[in-house]
Order: sequence, then structure tokens, then C-alpha cells
Amino acid sequence: MRSKLFYRMDPPKVLVFGFGAIILLGTLLLSLPASTVDGKGLPILDALFTATSATCVTGLVVVDTGDTFTRFGEMVILSMIQVGGLGFMSFATLLAFILGKRISFKERLIIQESLNNETVEGIVRLVKRIFLFTAVIEITGGIILTLRFSQDMAAGKAIYFGFFHAVSNFNNAGFDLMGGFKGLTAYAEDPIVNITMITLISLGGIGFIVMNELFDYRKTRRLSLHSKIVLALSAILVFGGALLIFILEFNNPSTLKPMTLTGKIFGAFYQAVTPRTAGSNTLNIPDLKQSTLFLIIFLMFIGASPGSTGGGIKTTTFAVLIGAVKSQIRGREDVTFFGRRMDHTIISKSLTVTLISLFLIGLVTMVLTITEPGKEFLMIFFETVSAFSTVGLSMGLTPELSLYGKILITITMFAGRVGPLTLAYAIAKKRKEDHYRYPAGKVMIG
Amino acid sequence: MRSKLFYRMDPPKVLVFGFGAIILLGTLLLSLPASTVDGKGLPILDALFTATSATCVTGLVVVDTGDTFTRFGEMVILSMIQVGGLGFMSFATLLAFILGKRISFKERLIIQESLNNETVEGIVRLVKRIFLFTAVIEITGGIILTLRFSQDMAAGKAIYFGFFHAVSNFNNAGFDLMGGFKGLTAYAEDPIVNITMITLISLGGIGFIVMNELFDYRKTRRLSLHSKIVLALSAILVFGGALLIFILEFNNPSTLKPMTLTGKIFGAFYQAVTPRTAGSNTLNIPDLKQSTLFLIIFLMFIGASPGSTGGGIKTTTFAVLIGAVKSQIRGREDVTFFGRRMDHTIISKSLTVTLISLFLIGLVTMVLTITEPGKEFLMIFFETVSAFSTVGLSMGLTPELSLYGKILITITMFAGRVGPLTLAYAIAKKRKEDHYRYPAGKVMIG
Ligand SMILES: [K+]
Ligand SMILES: [K+]
Repeated sequence: MRSKLFYRMDPPKVLVFGFGAIILLGTLLLSLPASTVDGKGLPILDALFTATSATCVTGLVVVDTGDTFTRFGEMVILSMIQVGGLGFMSFATLLAFILGKRISFKERLIIQESLNNETVEGIVRLVKRIFLFTAVIEITGGIILTLRFSQDMAAGKAIYFGFFHAVSNFNNAGFDLMGGFKGLTAYAEDPIVNITMITLISLGGIGFIVMNELFDYRKTRRLSLHSKIVLALSAILVFGGALLIFILEFNNPSTLKPMTLTGKIFGAFYQAVTPRTAGSNTLNIPDLKQSTLFLIIFLMFIGASPGSTGGGIKTTTFAVLIGAVKSQIRGREDVTFFGRRMDHTIISKSLTVTLISLFLIGLVTMVLTITEPGKEFLMIFFETVSAFSTVGLSMGLTPELSLYGKILITITMFAGRVGPLTLAYAIAKKRKEDHYRYPAGKVMIG
Repeated sequence: MRSKLFYRMDPPKVLVFGFGAIILLGTLLLSLPASTVDGKGLPILDALFTATSATCVTGLVVVDTGDTFTRFGEMVILSMIQVGGLGFMSFATLLAFILGKRISFKERLIIQESLNNETVEGIVRLVKRIFLFTAVIEITGGIILTLRFSQDMAAGKAIYFGFFHAVSNFNNAGFDLMGGFKGLTAYAEDPIVNITMITLISLGGIGFIVMNELFDYRKTRRLSLHSKIVLALSAILVFGGALLIFILEFNNPSTLKPMTLTGKIFGAFYQAVTPRTAGSNTLNIPDLKQSTLFLIIFLMFIGASPGSTGGGIKTTTFAVLIGAVKSQIRGREDVTFFGRRMDHTIISKSLTVTLISLFLIGLVTMVLTITEPGKEFLMIFFETVSAFSTVGLSMGLTPELSLYGKILITITMFAGRVGPLTLAYAIAKKRKEDHYRYPAGKVMIG
């Protein structure tokens, strides 16, 4: 029964049409007069852009969210974020699960290993657990942020702000209500906001499978290979990225220089975490140095982990590529992590995901250099990677985009969200069984 | 005997120390008062930069070659270009040959297929043939250019200019004597200069193995897989690149717009050919549109073909990656070209060369954004790729580089020249024999 249901659905179609329908509904709602404070409703293209950005949990904004929308409009955005984020996380996790069931015993191990999901009720329980985790994390985050914001604003607004930003950040959506395109810069040195946000983003970004394993860790005392790689690489990217940003921005008078040491450390960490791929920011992005911006582009390109709310080529993909290069240079035939061998089909998958992403980013960047004449290349490149990896950070290009630029970035956000998953599905579906020499370790790619 | 000789040398060391020694000698000579028209000799860092650029046949220049150097200085540069270009081409070809002999029967097929080099005199004959080809091509090119230049200048100068530019372009060195950093812009629409230069660059860039096979084609009536891939991809890059440049620059008043249709076509073709990786230019590079510049960065990154005078990740590397992605998407297990299967070790090699190149370019770009504050990102990125792929095109950053920038670009040029070969050697040397399922086709990578 279970298998029949899933065999009949074509998952990528469900994904594309499901997300498409939500975006169209959101576009309609945001263009209603009730959605904007000026009572005119958002122009249709801006509404489409915003709905796509929210549903794809990107966070690029052509208009400032806090300044432009009524409570109703903001709730439409928040709903799209929640549906998009939850839908995507469930879908990405389920897809791995479905692929595991229908493709091969070996890929199935990924899920078995981490979810122990052998019974008939597997899928239902899986989705239930995703919803439960999301609810617990968002409510906890929301309460903490509410307490913090209540020091600066009325209780009602503090609750609203607390929960909006908790949902937005756990889903790596990058939307904020602070106004004036300022992001969270007012809280750049605030320990509670920093710690809460960084935790929400990180949990959303490591993916449900890893969260689930961490949750069960006290019971099981073990982590799957997938989780080990995700946690190791995420730690390297966050601590390495924070260290570099700290050094690069230390003397920048527009960012870290005027801050206390603690503030500097928070600022560096937040900006190292947000490319995984939250998109909220506590430092003003255009004020960062070119070197920092380039580093952030690199971090955004890698993005989050599979089965998460985040985008990008994914930490595991990057880890496999690094592993492949290392083993090549050392003359080893096999790519190994934590004592397990990566099959070369995994390496090929990583390669494919990475090269197609690079190609699409290159193509969109090039077209934007044509449609946005006079704009700095770095600004365009940054915007493209941000859209493709569904990050939402911007050097300020988004509100200034031309008509064609807006359409192109809308498509890029959508492609960046559903594309890699669809691609992963297409690759996995058609793959033949290989002749294995000995048991291989597995991670998900894309 | 032959094998003993080659087994005792460590080829990458020969390459690094050989090129290093030539660069140091060149630096010394260029810093002599006799080398510069102002009688002061070139400052030591500029001399090191120029000597590295010439020996690595890059063509980036901190001072204009024609304006700064005496005939003696120019001859020093030309000698370095010839020794560097010939040395590199011989070395790259020999390396493939040596690797073929010492590593595996299968890799050896690359050379056997194309050179039929089975006898004891193989290596000597191989080098002789490289020298012969070089001499014939450079003399033919030199004579044609001399005849053309003699219309604009005195006979003696025309001969000198004719041969200098023939040698510089066949070796993909990118140095010119025209003065004022103008490059060959004065001949942008000239059919003889365009056709001659494009032919010289293309022959130098397809590599000796392909040249040799083309030469023997009337006799053998067959091309190796390697040559087929090189020729197919080179054609795609040149015609595709030219078409895009033609479209992108068609209305640019600083480049193609004022030209005749024939001139426009020549301009587009020349600028599509020169990233493979000659570095001479007939359009003023900083005048090109951002989109064209980004396209040229992409073309420069791919670069020339293995065993040639050019740099970059190489056409075959790029072809293998494209093939890998295509077969993944189509669900095929094997990557095939012209009816031959690529072994997955070739794919891993391509991946390694590409990722390490991307990483180094990213790193150098990032450091340059720190050492060259206030310079446009695209300018820095362009310069880095140009140096790494030993192209020599520049948006004008080279003469304005800071002290650290000059040192970094010098190192990048050297690393870009000897690095990929050394890497290819390291990868190939340590590789173990695999268990083959059926015969696989081969191409060289790196
Ligand atoms: K985001
Ligand atoms: K060159």
C-alpha cells in the first residue's frame, strides 16, 4: 500500500506544482489592498517576487517587509515561509526516504541508519516528527525572542516580532520586520538575539535527519556517517568563517571596529552562520569588505545540509568533493570519511550537483550583467548566488533590479529551491545498480 | 637505458627548478641598464614579474614591453618566451609520455595512439618533432606578419616585429611591442594579422599531440580520441565564444560598433580565441562589457589543450566534466565520447584539477581584494584567472598592482604554469591499477 502510493506520485512534479500553487496564491494575496499599508496592494511583479522569496524561504526583498506590509500581508508572508520551509524539509527528507525504498538497499541505509524507520507507519511517523520538532523549536525560540523584544516594545508587538523572527530564522527564510532594509543590525551586539537566532538557523540548516539523531543520541549513543559529516563540516564552516570574518572586518569602521570584543565575536559568528542559508543579517552587508563579501559568496554556495530548510549545494556535497580531491592527491583510490568508503556514484552526484549549480549561477550572473548595466559585478554575483542558494542576503541590488532582473531572480530563487532536489531525484531514479567490491558508506547529495 | 634516465629524474622537480632558474636569469638580465630605454634597468620586483610572465608565457605586464625595453631587453623576453613555451610544451608532452611508460599500459595508449612511439629513439624523435613543428610554424607566421608589417614600418623593424609577434603568439605568450599597453588594437580589423595570429594561437593551443596527428592525418586517416575531443571542444569554444562576443559587443561604441561587419567578425573571433590562452588582444579589454568580460573569464579558466603552450584547466578536463554531468542526468553509468568509455579515474582527475584550480583562484582573488583595496572585484577576478591560466589579458590592474599584489600575481603565474602539471604527475604517479571491466578510452587531464 505505502509503496503503491509513492510509486504513483512523481515527486518532482508534486514539488514543482505544489510550490508553484502556493506562490500563485501568495502573489494574489499580497497584491490585495489589505496587504500593504498604502492600501494599494503590491504591484503584481513585486508580489510574485515576494511570494516566491517567501515560499522558497529565500528572503530577498524588493520592498522592505516591515515598512510595506500590513499585519495581514506579513501573516501571508509568514504562512508562506512556514508552509514552504516545512514542506521543503518534509519533502527533502521524504524524498531521501522514498528514494531509499525504491532504488536500492544501500541508499535506504541512509534513512534506516538515522531514523530506524522500518515499520509500515514509517512515513507518517516521520512527518509527525518533523512537525513536532518544528513546533517545539519555533515556540521555544519565539518565547525567548519575545522576552528579549519586550524590553524594546509593547508586549503585543514583542510577541508578534518574537514569533515572526523565530519562524523566519528556523526556516532559514531571512525575512524580518525591522524596517528600512536594516535587518537585525540594531541587535548586532545583543547576546540573547545572537545566540537564539544562531541556534535557530543552525538547527534549521543541519537538516531533520541530523536533528533527529541528535535528539535520540542519549538513547542510541551513535551518529550515522551522514550526521558526522554534516556536523563536522558545519562546525568547520562556522568557526573557520567566523574567524576569517573577525580578522577581515576587525578594522572596518562601518562594521566591527566600533563594537566591543563580545560584539565583534557575535558579529563575526552571525555573519558566518547566516550564509547556511538564513539570510538575516546583523551587520550591514554593503558595508562589508570585498574580501568578506567574496567569502560569504563561497559560504552561501555551499549552503546548508540535505533535508533541511536551507539551500545551496549542501555541506555533504562539498565534503565529498574535498574528500575526492584529497584522496586523489594522496594517490588513494577510495574516498573515505570516518572509516567508510564513498562509492564513486556519490562522487559523481556531488560533481553533477556542483557543476550544474556553478553553470546556472554563471549563466544568471552573465544575463544580469546585461539586464543591469552599470551595476557592480560583485553585487550581481552576490545577488545571484544568494538567490540560487535561497540565502536572501543582498548588497542592495534587489530593490533596484530592472523588470527583467526581477523576473530572472524570481526564476533563480524557484530553480534554486526545487531544482537541486528534482535533479537529485532524476539522478537517483535512473541509476542502475553497480557491482560493489565491498560495503560502502553513504551520504545524501544535493 | 632510456627508462633508467627518466626513472631517476623527478619530473616535477626538473620543471620547477628549470623554470625557476630561467626566471632568475631573466630577472637579472632585465634589471641590467642595457635592458631598458631609460638606461636604469627594471626595478628588481618588476623584472621578476616580467621574467615570470615571459617564462610562464603569460603576458601580464607591469610596464609596456614596447615602450620600456631596449632591443636587448626585448630579446631577453623573447628568449624566455621561446624557452618557456618550447620547454613547457616538450615537458608536458614528455610527461604524458613518461607517465605512459611508467604507469600503465592503458595510459600509454594515449601516446601510442597518437605518436606511434614504440621504438627506443621515441623520446628523441618526439622532441625533435616538437622543435621542427615550432620552427616551421613560427617561421611561416613570422614571414607572413613581416610582409604585413612592412606596409606600416621600415623593413628591419617589420622583420623584427613579424617574428617577435609570431613567436609570442604561437607560444601563447601574449607579449607585444606595439606600445602604450595598446596590444594589437591597431590591427583589429586587419584580415592578415587576424588570420595569422588566430592560426598561430590555435596551433599553439591545441597541443603537440593533436598537431602531430593532424600533420600525419593524410597518411593515417585517423585521429585519436584525445584529438577528437580537443578539436571538437576547441571548435565549440571558439565558434560559441565568438558568436556570444559578437552579440554582446555589437552595439558597444568602444569596441565593435564602429567597425565594418568583417571587422566585427574578426574582433569577435580574436577575442574568443585569445583566452585559449594567448593573451594578446585586438579589442581594448577594459572597454568590453561586463558580460563579455565574464564570458572571457570562463573561457580563460578552461584555457588550452594538454601538451600545448597554453594554460588553464584544459579543454579535455572540461569535456570530461561535461560528459560526467550529462551521463549522470541521463542515468547512464558510463561517460562516453565518440564511442569510448572514460574510466572513472579520469573523471576524478578532472574533478581534482578543476576544484584545486577553483580553490586557488578563489584564494588569490580573496587575498587580492585585501591587498588591492578600492579596486573593482571583476578587475581582480579577471586578473587572477588570467594569471593562473597564463593568459595575460588584463582589465588594467597589472601596472597598478601593489607590492604584495605583484608578488602574489608572480606566484600565481608560476603556480598556474607548473602547478597543474606537477599535480597531474603526482596524481598519476601514485595511482594504483584498477580492475577494469572492459577497455576504456583515454584522454589526458590537466
Ligand atoms: K534564506
Ligand atoms: K599567455
